[in-house]
Amino acid sequence: MAATQQTQETAILDCFLELVTSPYGNFTAINKLAYLLNDPATLQKIVAALSLTPQGKQAFIDRPLLGQVDLQHLHQLPTETLGYLYADHMIRNGLTPLSANTQVNDSITYLQAHISETHDIWHVVTGADTDKSGEVQLEAFYVAQLYPDRLFLALLTKNLLKTALYEIELCEQIMDALTQGWMMGRQAKPLFGIQWNQLWETPLEDVQTSLCIIKR
Amino acid sequence: MAATQQTQETAILDCFLELVTSPYGNFTAINKLAYLLNDPATLQKIVAALSLTPQGKQAFIDRPLLGQVDLQHLHQLPTETLGYLYADHMIRNGLTPLSANTQVNDSITYLQAHISETHDIWHVVTGADTDKSGEVQLEAFYVAQLYPDRLFLALLTKNLLKTALYEIELCEQIMDALTQGWMMGRQAKPLFGIQWNQLWETPLEDVQTSLCIIKR
Repeated sequence: MAATQQTQETAILDCFLELVTSPYGNFTAINKLAYLLNDPATLQKIVAALSLTPQGKQAFIDRPLLGQVDLQHLHQLPTETLGYLYADHMIRNGLTPLSANTQVNDSITYLQAHISETHDIWHVVTGADTDKSGEVQLEAFYVAQLYPDRLFLALLTKNLLKTALYEIELCEQIMDALTQGWMMGRQAKPLFGIQWNQLWETPLEDVQTSLCIIKR
Repeated sequence: MAATQQTQETAILDCFLELVTSPYGNFTAINKLAYLLNDPATLQKIVAALSLTPQGKQAFIDRPLLGQVDLQHLHQLPTETLGYLYADHMIRNGLTPLSANTQVNDSITYLQAHISETHDIWHVVTGADTDKSGEVQLEAFYVAQLYPDRLFLALLTKNLLKTALYEIELCEQIMDALTQGWMMGRQAKPLFGIQWNQLWETPLEDVQTSLCIIKR
């Protein structure tokens, strides 16, 4: 193995261990792991794979972003709509919409900005809670939808190792969530590139049906 | 965290990393990880959980072992039988039956001896190949069947991290295998404690049907 590869491998494993041994939600280490694992060559491959569908290809041309999201306004919509349920999810969990703060000037920066700013919409659309098993469910869904992304497989792995080390009593619900997320992600239409802000007024169930998102 | 717990955690993580960075089949490190993760308290809990079924409870009383297995003799049985297919699996893969070489004198040593010596029978009965995805399928099956075992979840995790680091192109088949193994293991009757040497002449399909092992 070349010296630089070995340094890269060591850096990845150090970062992975830091995530395993620190409490959930260490975003500094998650961002570092993303940077190390999804290197430029991997990001190019993800862009190429997502461009295979007309929706993905178009997204890389138009680069649509959510823009400013007014949660209080969305929370006035009928309670069955995507907009209301997204706003409710954000308010209940004390979350603020991440407006893309990196400059989007090519396919790779668009990919990163879009995935970041739509993360909580994916939570709502897939029905994945923000607890430990819900995060695993969504990570497995990402693994199915963003191949050959390496970050979400590593994050899923990190959560399985935390379970084996510290909380084996969660094993069943974590493994069930992983299985559900993977199968749902394989079966669903691609979520990448959807212009969610055109769907705020659509009932969530209709959004899920149109995307073939089926809960078991 | 107490100092001894921290030392234990460090030893587990060191061993885990050794497995991630070494080629598949590092049995020295696997045995060490088993010793560290399945500590006496965990082993007691596994025995208690497996004793909840009459079959498991009886196995801990009778402690049946396979004994000497004559592969050439089994290979003369009709080709649809468990015995023939087990022998064929062993011969094709250049494997020798592991006769229990630890002294079995209590429930914990029985658990360890029985799981070791029946490993390749579980391969045949679950239809899991000995390639990377087959091992992951069987590990997920063990996770479902041997709760609260911590070793097989860690081994599964190790293989997912190897995939994320070195072979992301295997991701789909590894995740499919994991999902299949977990669902199969949840659905099947317990395999622990079965006296396999009484089933050599039974067609494999009948064994699988009676154990609710269903391939998807």
